[in-house]
Amino acid sequence: MTNTLPSTDLLARFTAIVGAQHAVTDPAAQAAYLVESRGLYRGTTPVVLKPGSVAEVSAILKLATETGVAIVPQGGNTGHVAGQIPRPDAGDIVLSLERLNRIRAIDPVGNVIVCDAGCILADIQQAAEAQDRLFPLSLGSEGSCRIGGNLSTNAGGTAVLAYGNMRQLCLGLEVVLPTGEIWDGLRSLKKDNTGYDLRDLFIGAEGTLGIITGAVLKLFPRPAGHQVAFAGLNSVAQALALFDRASSLCGPALTGFELMPRIGVDFTTRHIPGVRDPMPTQHAWYVLIDISTTDTAERAEQMMQDLLTRGMEDGLVENAIIASSEAQRKSLWHMRESMSPAQKPEGGSIKHDVSVPVSAIPAFMAQADAAVMAAIPGARICAFGHMGDGNIHYNISQPIGVDKQDFIDRWREINAIVHGIVLTFNGSISAEHGIGQLKRDELAEVRPSIEIDLMQRIKHAFDPAGIMNPDKVLKARTA
Amino acid sequence: MTNTLPSTDLLARFTAIVGAQHAVTDPAAQAAYLVESRGLYRGTTPVVLKPGSVAEVSAILKLATETGVAIVPQGGNTGHVAGQIPRPDAGDIVLSLERLNRIRAIDPVGNVIVCDAGCILADIQQAAEAQDRLFPLSLGSEGSCRIGGNLSTNAGGTAVLAYGNMRQLCLGLEVVLPTGEIWDGLRSLKKDNTGYDLRDLFIGAEGTLGIITGAVLKLFPRPAGHQVAFAGLNSVAQALALFDRASSLCGPALTGFELMPRIGVDFTTRHIPGVRDPMPTQHAWYVLIDISTTDTAERAEQMMQDLLTRGMEDGLVENAIIASSEAQRKSLWHMRESMSPAQKPEGGSIKHDVSVPVSAIPAFMAQADAAVMAAIPGARICAFGHMGDGNIHYNISQPIGVDKQDFIDRWREINAIVHGIVLTFNGSISAEHGIGQLKRDELAEVRPSIEIDLMQRIKHAFDPAGIMNPDKVLKARTA
Repeated sequence: MTNTLPSTDLLARFTAIVGAQHAVTDPAAQAAYLVESRGLYRGTTPVVLKPGSVAEVSAILKLATETGVAIVPQGGNTGHVAGQIPRPDAGDIVLSLERLNRIRAIDPVGNVIVCDAGCILADIQQAAEAQDRLFPLSLGSEGSCRIGGNLSTNAGGTAVLAYGNMRQLCLGLEVVLPTGEIWDGLRSLKKDNTGYDLRDLFIGAEGTLGIITGAVLKLFPRPAGHQVAFAGLNSVAQALALFDRASSLCGPALTGFELMPRIGVDFTTRHIPGVRDPMPTQHAWYVLIDISTTDTAERAEQMMQDLLTRGMEDGLVENAIIASSEAQRKSLWHMRESMSPAQKPEGGSIKHDVSVPVSAIPAFMAQADAAVMAAIPGARICAFGHMGDGNIHYNISQPIGVDKQDFIDRWREINAIVHGIVLTFNGSISAEHGIGQLKRDELAEVRPSIEIDLMQRIKHAFDPAGIMNPDKVLKARTA
Repeated sequence: MTNTLPSTDLLARFTAIVGAQHAVTDPAAQAAYLVESRGLYRGTTPVVLKPGSVAEVSAILKLATETGVAIVPQGGNTGHVAGQIPRPDAGDIVLSLERLNRIRAIDPVGNVIVCDAGCILADIQQAAEAQDRLFPLSLGSEGSCRIGGNLSTNAGGTAVLAYGNMRQLCLGLEVVLPTGEIWDGLRSLKKDNTGYDLRDLFIGAEGTLGIITGAVLKLFPRPAGHQVAFAGLNSVAQALALFDRASSLCGPALTGFELMPRIGVDFTTRHIPGVRDPMPTQHAWYVLIDISTTDTAERAEQMMQDLLTRGMEDGLVENAIIASSEAQRKSLWHMRESMSPAQKPEGGSIKHDVSVPVSAIPAFMAQADAAVMAAIPGARICAFGHMGDGNIHYNISQPIGVDKQDFIDRWREINAIVHGIVLTFNGSISAEHGIGQLKRDELAEVRPSIEIDLMQRIKHAFDPAGIMNPDKVLKARTA
């Protein structure tokens, strides 16, 4: 750690930028900013600053670069890899974007919305809806995560298949650089080939190159038709074959194709209030299929019928139901989104957020299952996720009756096994959650050294003082 | 110019890497590599090297970095901004990718193709078609442009509305860095949030950060239905209103929405063999509408009918025809693609490749037309292009009877007028062609200095010896 531990005088200068009422030093009030949702990482901070303007963000970063104090930007504190959590006892100042939450402009004809980085995702969704438009990013934490965090982690979620990750949903950015300089890249252009792609460099950088303070996001027409179905199948290979038919038939109308195992249905029906098994028959695997059409509602119905009929004729689908109301559609999605929370009452869970080429999913799952069961007999594998994106949340619940902590202590060992198999498929150890602190050292191990070196060169070129979210994504270079 | 003028001995070392039979020194054989299609830029080179392997590319760059000799990568030499043309008398060695033209792998289930950067675009399209898949990038030069150039300029073309630019069509890259090190980023993943987005940094960098030698590209299901219509309208505002209806109705099935002026129809019917006016009535403006559907052919027919019927009922469309055969569809697209060549026989043409927010197109056109007509009375404005992308090729043919060279000599003056108006809409002076040499100095003028500075920092971090395509995109820093 090479950053400055800020003195009382220096802290007073930082505090003066935002005003004392927006500088949190009380330990109880700070607590919510210092630990992430899974409780794996806890940090400390001398002060949480809540700037009320881009100019204040700029002044904070300028002072930080001058003095060497580290700044940790934070949105809704919903990240899964601890990129938003300060280091313990390092003097890291937390900069919360929560007060920068204005929608600056919305243009339904041009299909864009311009907003502050501190806007909550659900507020953006609702603002779009009020103009008869769709902002398609959707994830479990949408009621509290913020746009700046969504951008900084290139958030994925449940509609990536049709609309892409956050990267694809962003047209322009405003970024405060570590020096305090402001880059105004708030352009609303669909095409702009003018030099290096700075926008995509800041997206996914987890706040290590600067702080995103504003964004231009894409809006879409609201679908006229929406259908959700739940199908039972016998194997992951059959799910892949069905996905292949679904993408050929529906093209971009296929908005979701989510895989779930039987054990996930057991866990959710057992633990999540209101969730019940939607089918009388039991199946080894399930897929949730989501289809949206822009022209007519009937078209989505027809597509879903055609797909399931063909899937049954081809011996892929054992049984299926189509939701007949918005309430039923929500209910099916609620089961899918409860997969992870439903594991909690079952004891310890070792998690992975991996991706492989879509066509490699069955082989990956077979190899990973065999390796995990050999390492931990009795482990209950609850692997689910965004099959159409090649993105599996390969989660493992502890065997019944073993000690939870003993199981959790094997996190790194099991990660190494699963990620090792992922790498044989040229896959990714972080499909959508990012690197943060959790996967920083592992990233450096699994990627070619030239790749990490190029990232370090970019980091140094943008943040020579090393004040932007140090030790996240990349280990801070000691001078 | 700070690069080394290579000595005879040094040239012999470069030549030895590829073998004398793949090193072009004969002036007649070199000619095709030294001038771009519009003839605005001509360069010289001591030798054109044609490496036959990635290892040879690596050896060339390693030697270049050691000795300070500049390397100019070149694909199909179809670029419009002279990014691929060596500087005159600077000792720049041209490195042609033409021998690296293997398709390495194709996976129709995973919907990816892996290819060398020297593959010709049309060959990739055909390889996809042979597997019943679509590679959607399509542009006028597809029979000769190469994938490495398409990536390095983030090529656009006629299907961006539905499928995106080259950036959106690429999953992974292999890049030889200026030092000769090879970055293997040939991943086939739809999701991969693992640090800085190096891929998107190399895409659009015009060969100034390294040489792309291989790529993983996305494939798509081939559409079941395809409809093309040609509609006559009274104004650009009506075209925008029709586009708004088309995108709401068709969503991602709307694959093209191209704007053309009456004068463009006049030019093409007058000069391009086989092109004739498809309608008996004359209109101030025309749009070519292209719809593709994945489910059924009837669906595309129905959508097009619905759109045109509604457009007529709403008073937007004056007259329209729907192509009834593949030959007719090709014929309508041929007229659109002939807009630029048809200007040549009309004398000098001053060209712009600009973008503005889609909803600003009518206002931009009105202001630009007024300013251009005030500056050059009698100018014949032939503005056409990808309306759905906000991308207009705002071309101006000379007044009848004036001297061609006198007109062309006003290129910079007219650029300044048109680009000045573009900037008031926060638009781009290069929507899809890139910066190269043609727009390098203007980019530095119109963008905030921090933006150019960040690009310079990236350039220096990746290419400290300054050997990669110097003076393109950015002016080479003199040490």
